Amino acid sequence: MLKAVGVSFGIAIGKALLINDEVVEVKKIKVSDSKGEVARFDNALKEAIVELEKMVEGVKEKLGDAKAEIFEAHLCMLEDPEFIGAIQKKIDDEMVSAEYSLQTVSTETAAVFENMDNAYMKERAVDIRDVSKRVMNILMGIKVASIADIQDECILVARDLTPSDTAQIDKEKVLAFVTEIGGRTAHTSIIARSLELPAVVGAGSGIHKIKDGDLIIVDGEEGLVIIKPDEKTLNEYKIKREEFIESKHQLLKYATMSSITTDGKKVEIAANIGSAADLGAVLKNGAEAIGLFRTEFLYMANDALPTEEEQFGEYKSVLEKMNGKPVIIRTLDIGGDKKLDYLPMDEEMNPFLGYRAIRLCLDRTDIFKTQLRALVRASAFGKLKIMFPMICNIQELRAAKKLLEECTKELKSEGVTFDEKIEVGIMIEIPSAAIISDVLAKEVDFFSIGTNDLIQYTLAVDRMNEKISYLYDFYHPAVLRLIKIVIDNGHKAGITVNMCGEMAGDANLIPVLLGFGLDEFSMSAASILRARKTITNSSFKECEKLSAPVLTFGDADEIKDYIKANIKA
Amino acid sequence: MLKAVGVSFGIAIGKALLINDEVVEVKKIKVSDSKGEVARFDNALKEAIVELEKMVEGVKEKLGDAKAEIFEAHLCMLEDPEFIGAIQKKIDDEMVSAEYSLQTVSTETAAVFENMDNAYMKERAVDIRDVSKRVMNILMGIKVASIADIQDECILVARDLTPSDTAQIDKEKVLAFVTEIGGRTAHTSIIARSLELPAVVGAGSGIHKIKDGDLIIVDGEEGLVIIKPDEKTLNEYKIKREEFIESKHQLLKYATMSSITTDGKKVEIAANIGSAADLGAVLKNGAEAIGLFRTEFLYMANDALPTEEEQFGEYKSVLEKMNGKPVIIRTLDIGGDKKLDYLPMDEEMNPFLGYRAIRLCLDRTDIFKTQLRALVRASAFGKLKIMFPMICNIQELRAAKKLLEECTKELKSEGVTFDEKIEVGIMIEIPSAAIISDVLAKEVDFFSIGTNDLIQYTLAVDRMNEKISYLYDFYHPAVLRLIKIVIDNGHKAGITVNMCGEMAGDANLIPVLLGFGLDEFSMSAASILRARKTITNSSFKECEKLSAPVLTFGDADEIKDYIKANIKA
Repeated sequence: MLKAVGVSFGIAIGKALLINDEVVEVKKIKVSDSKGEVARFDNALKEAIVELEKMVEGVKEKLGDAKAEIFEAHLCMLEDPEFIGAIQKKIDDEMVSAEYSLQTVSTETAAVFENMDNAYMKERAVDIRDVSKRVMNILMGIKVASIADIQDECILVARDLTPSDTAQIDKEKVLAFVTEIGGRTAHTSIIARSLELPAVVGAGSGIHKIKDGDLIIVDGEEGLVIIKPDEKTLNEYKIKREEFIESKHQLLKYATMSSITTDGKKVEIAANIGSAADLGAVLKNGAEAIGLFRTEFLYMANDALPTEEEQFGEYKSVLEKMNGKPVIIRTLDIGGDKKLDYLPMDEEMNPFLGYRAIRLCLDRTDIFKTQLRALVRASAFGKLKIMFPMICNIQELRAAKKLLEECTKELKSEGVTFDEKIEVGIMIEIPSAAIISDVLAKEVDFFSIGTNDLIQYTLAVDRMNEKISYLYDFYHPAVLRLIKIVIDNGHKAGITVNMCGEMAGDANLIPVLLGFGLDEFSMSAASILRARKTITNSSFKECEKLSAPVLTFGDADEIKDYIKANIKA
Repeated sequence: MLKAVGVSFGIAIGKALLINDEVVEVKKIKVSDSKGEVARFDNALKEAIVELEKMVEGVKEKLGDAKAEIFEAHLCMLEDPEFIGAIQKKIDDEMVSAEYSLQTVSTETAAVFENMDNAYMKERAVDIRDVSKRVMNILMGIKVASIADIQDECILVARDLTPSDTAQIDKEKVLAFVTEIGGRTAHTSIIARSLELPAVVGAGSGIHKIKDGDLIIVDGEEGLVIIKPDEKTLNEYKIKREEFIESKHQLLKYATMSSITTDGKKVEIAANIGSAADLGAVLKNGAEAIGLFRTEFLYMANDALPTEEEQFGEYKSVLEKMNGKPVIIRTLDIGGDKKLDYLPMDEEMNPFLGYRAIRLCLDRTDIFKTQLRALVRASAFGKLKIMFPMICNIQELRAAKKLLEECTKELKSEGVTFDEKIEVGIMIEIPSAAIISDVLAKEVDFFSIGTNDLIQYTLAVDRMNEKISYLYDFYHPAVLRLIKIVIDNGHKAGITVNMCGEMAGDANLIPVLLGFGLDEFSMSAASILRARKTITNSSFKECEKLSAPVLTFGDADEIKDYIKANIKA
């Protein structure tokens, strides 16, 4: 039995399929005919491009446009004259084999991205390695079993899964993943959750105990992998699996229900999205609104600033698909760990405490006004609300509203029609904003508490920093007190208070937040049904009574114990 | 007239002395006799060492031991076999001139330090350049006018002043500085304030309008340099200078007074220090306590962890010199922007939100317990109090107190005598600690509000980041509200509440903080007299009444205006 990190719920029982990704050793081999060698490389390149183009078509057809994007990105890399040129030049200059040149240049290029210390760029390193591996296999004549070709049900066991691996997964065949490396926020883990496949990652060298074809059990909640279980264990887990499937099935009925407590209080369960492509699961699970549309992906996917037209098209599309349900669009939150290739920014010592989000937008009003114009124009096509991130004082809010007003005036004089009453709100994600929320509430239509950053700043803990992430805690009494202060201040001013951090989807905390008076819970689409089950089975009055004592505790552990003992989801 | 950054108060009128530090161009020159060239370098090196040794003696005698430390550090660099060896090796390997080798190696070495992104290491880069310049001048036969040799009163005008320049300044001769580059936190600025000389930095290329011998006026408060003033201006500034000197003179009487308001409330004005060497000014200005002894300099000045004996000696020395007055010693606050050469730490994306201070100490209990033992032992020699930095939750406080208890038990069983009732307190510098200060107050003897970090985290602003430092604001209403909450929670639990950030020495805010009920104001020695003047001329009752409305404002500008109009220092 292996104990590792469970990153996606569920139980799977099936045969292990080992994905062999042994590292092939590439030696420095000198060649005499460098022109011939470059030609050999060019042929492998062409073959890889054909492979990828086929993949784009196949994946689009089978799994949808969004999944194919990864292969389109790989195609771009193979068509990038700088990257490819460097490989060709090295073969020619140093008279070395195509394999050696490819290996060296791709390792160096990946390292540059890797060292960029930001999640988006680090992912580019994964892609470089992934696409280079494809060309390398062609050069070396290595045939790789394609995940797309899997015929029988299986559980994938691998050192790690690359983006091209996961993009080809057919949920009818693949039952679960187990990987040697990785953590909760690794690519593989995110994909597992979005595919709703049980997964255990970071199993370490123990993974080598699993042989191809072994029967294994994966428990994605407990982080367990049981290899060749005995009859008794197998039967236990078969029952557990049935129960899990049954409870998941039962959750489906919540997709069409309203989010109303047993004593009649109506709240909203909303979804967080990154683009129109995410709307499928959102609509399927019956989100009552979009609580957070993160627009930065629109900027990161491009190789130039998206134009007003491009943005307008995307916003309009989301609004139309949501068919009149409210959509809160957050203005650009770039900087921090999110950078844009085409917008060079100074290196910062502490990017999370730096030039990002509204700070950048109020400085680069050209970028900001383009987005605001697109938003205002899109408001004609649904119920759009605008939200400013990272507000830390009243001046920033006023400055942002002033620019929005300039844009509406401009558009009016251009004869454009739009919603004249667009609601404007702010993220409460900096402690100072929470503390002066009484003042801020008077100048906005809604708050949305961004717990991810709020916790980070309140506790002075970078949650991406593994060395101290144990300090990052939803249950810290200061966090819960700040949330209550914000909700009360919002309600005193007559505005709604939402939450769009990960905390809003935490099943144990939902009753507490409900008791505090939170109006909208915005979360990833996968958490919606469970959250609605909790809310529709809770009494608001009861939650209110039970959650009050939480504010008197000084210790997160006491709070956890109290909730466990007194408040049932 | 030049308008730049005033970094040290006062008015000076005098003749400009241009310190010529033109950059000498060093070309790559090949030599045929590399052995002879190495010998030439070695001779220059010896000469530089003799020069520096003389300087150490001269400066010690004239300006005190502390000022001589910089030259001792330079001596160490010239005796460092790695640095010197690299220069000799380059001459020999590449058959190049000593000048070229020195220039290349020192530039590279300085760049390594420069890029370390932390203030202490960056200063090492300044030293490397400084000492290399000395050797270069000897190699090239350039005679430099020594600042130590200045005969007549003058105002120094330079591109920048190096540590060896400033260490030789005789206050009888040098009236002020003006520099082309630099900012408020540059070396030159810090030195100007500690020497109490008016200074204007960052004057840019405008500085070239000043000719050697020109009569100039420097206004360190307004950041003005007036070149060749007319009769009227000159007379105006003569009067201003007299007024400044007079008011400074009058401040002296506050050195021997107690810090008692006109209506009889006694508070404490304490000093922040980095080592026993800082005590001169502290005692001269009559500090009533040490509110913050930053022990990290003891660790940074060493090339290994300081032993228990070394630490004990330093703490004992401070306690004895303070002669029974309270001394709050803060346990190690390393990490963030402060690193130790001999204690390698992982690179962090956001070091200010990372593994530092108590987080490191609770992880490296070996380091922590050595310090705690030294502190407990030193407590026998004065009124020592122990303070833990960066506490963000109650668990950390309890864990730190437990380790302290272990140390006292050990020492007791070893028969060591110490103060059995050492007071234990914490820094309140993380928002979560301020918010749960009601809970924390029950388990400590005092709080000290560390405003520098508290503001940084509360506003999510890295104050070292120039691009957004405009957001860093003492007057942000959230900051003032948090301070008031901490003071009230401390008093409810019957403990004293101190402040040791820069805010405690801000003349405009002292009456407000006094009105909030702050018990101790800890600041740099230079601010003590002004602060005591303010306090002894204030009525506590009046300050209390006037400061209450500050908590109702939502806008820092409103608060500034209100204080300006209603509260006089």
